[in-house]
Amino acid sequence: MKFSIITLFPNLISSYISESIIKRAIDKQKIEIDIIDLRQHTTYSHNQVDDYQFGGGKGMVLMVEPVVNAINSCKTKDSVVLLTSPQGKTWSQNLVKTFKNNYQHLIIVCGHYEGFDERILDYIDFEVSVGDYVITGGELASLIVVDSITRLIEGVIANESHQNDSFENNLLDHPVYTKPVEFDGKKVPEVLLSGHHANIEKFRQQGRIKNTYDKRPDLLETNNWSADDLDYLKKLQKKLKGD
Amino acid sequence: MKFSIITLFPNLISSYISESIIKRAIDKQKIEIDIIDLRQHTTYSHNQVDDYQFGGGKGMVLMVEPVVNAINSCKTKDSVVLLTSPQGKTWSQNLVKTFKNNYQHLIIVCGHYEGFDERILDYIDFEVSVGDYVITGGELASLIVVDSITRLIEGVIANESHQNDSFENNLLDHPVYTKPVEFDGKKVPEVLLSGHHANIEKFRQQGRIKNTYDKRPDLLETNNWSADDLDYLKKLQKKLKGD
Repeated sequence: MKFSIITLFPNLISSYISESIIKRAIDKQKIEIDIIDLRQHTTYSHNQVDDYQFGGGKGMVLMVEPVVNAINSCKTKDSVVLLTSPQGKTWSQNLVKTFKNNYQHLIIVCGHYEGFDERILDYIDFEVSVGDYVITGGELASLIVVDSITRLIEGVIANESHQNDSFENNLLDHPVYTKPVEFDGKKVPEVLLSGHHANIEKFRQQGRIKNTYDKRPDLLETNNWSADDLDYLKKLQKKLKGD
Repeated sequence: MKFSIITLFPNLISSYISESIIKRAIDKQKIEIDIIDLRQHTTYSHNQVDDYQFGGGKGMVLMVEPVVNAINSCKTKDSVVLLTSPQGKTWSQNLVKTFKNNYQHLIIVCGHYEGFDERILDYIDFEVSVGDYVITGGELASLIVVDSITRLIEGVIANESHQNDSFENNLLDHPVYTKPVEFDGKKVPEVLLSGHHANIEKFRQQGRIKNTYDKRPDLLETNNWSADDLDYLKKLQKKLKGD
């Protein structure tokens, strides 16, 4: 998988990458990252890439031409072009898998905190948002896109590590415990020390359901339940009502 | 506002900060950032901070003791403690404002991609998630929390820049345009060049509504509408039905 990141802040992207797990994936040749400095693609003087908006108002707006030039500098027939923006489709674990499974080359244009010329959208395949909040630039959002996809690529992290991710099967992950057995009066649940694999798996599946029920009940609506799962859900609901 | 970030990857946080708008806010003394290296707070040999989970399974789990020590090293009576985790409450522009307006010291514990000992939650005030996807560590999430709050602090960016943010009043922002007036056959809408302020504001408000209607209709449900806005919404709906 290749990522081309178009940004006003190439150092910001490269400094993060050099310290993260993304670096390991590059070293193992699992991914390739190409950082494209937007200022290298403007034809305006003083490397200008943004200007005031028509109609008045504060804030510098990203110009269309440098962005289109930068996209064209790396685009091939296999590329798909993303723009990070608070107005985009909300990034989710399902989208992570979709992009990981269907594309070989992602061009990611980092949005700009003051906005971008609307005509840029004509050159973009997907506008994506990492969440319903505003950040100063699209760089953190681009890194989230790169990181979330990269960790699912075969050989980057252990397979077992992401098979139980939160959001797999629309459930949050179960609680986990490590040493010590007791800390500050709080003990690890007995069953996890029992060595009884079937009981441990049952405890974990109930933990997934309870976590999701407590923290993100909205996710439960779209689930496929086993009879055991439904039994446990019923118990949870009864408990809540104080029965 | 002070942020204390507890992380396994202090260089990753500091390298990002030194290149971003957060740096400017620190230089202007609008915020203070304290990066706390988790490995400095373990009592285990070899600076150990994670271990295998009880009950079996791949992946290293963050231990409770170093995290609690690190929190205690910087906690005061005015602190609030956050943990970034995919299981947290979803971060949103409303939460950004709530935290900005109500707290002076945020301690942010960066989650760990393989999970953390469940007992850590007993020492945390808020578990927050930046979105429904999994990333390799909580560092990007922590930076999103810091960045989204910092930009709203008086004097960091121009006030006018965030009064029209997406998600203000549950609307996405309107389209913006900058030079040139024509690019690749695509022109800037006439009204923006007219200098007629009332018409420009009307065009922009309709742009906010149309953007939200097209891209995030879920946001519209919670809005307070003016009579003019409702008129325009009705027109949009008729257009969609082909009337």
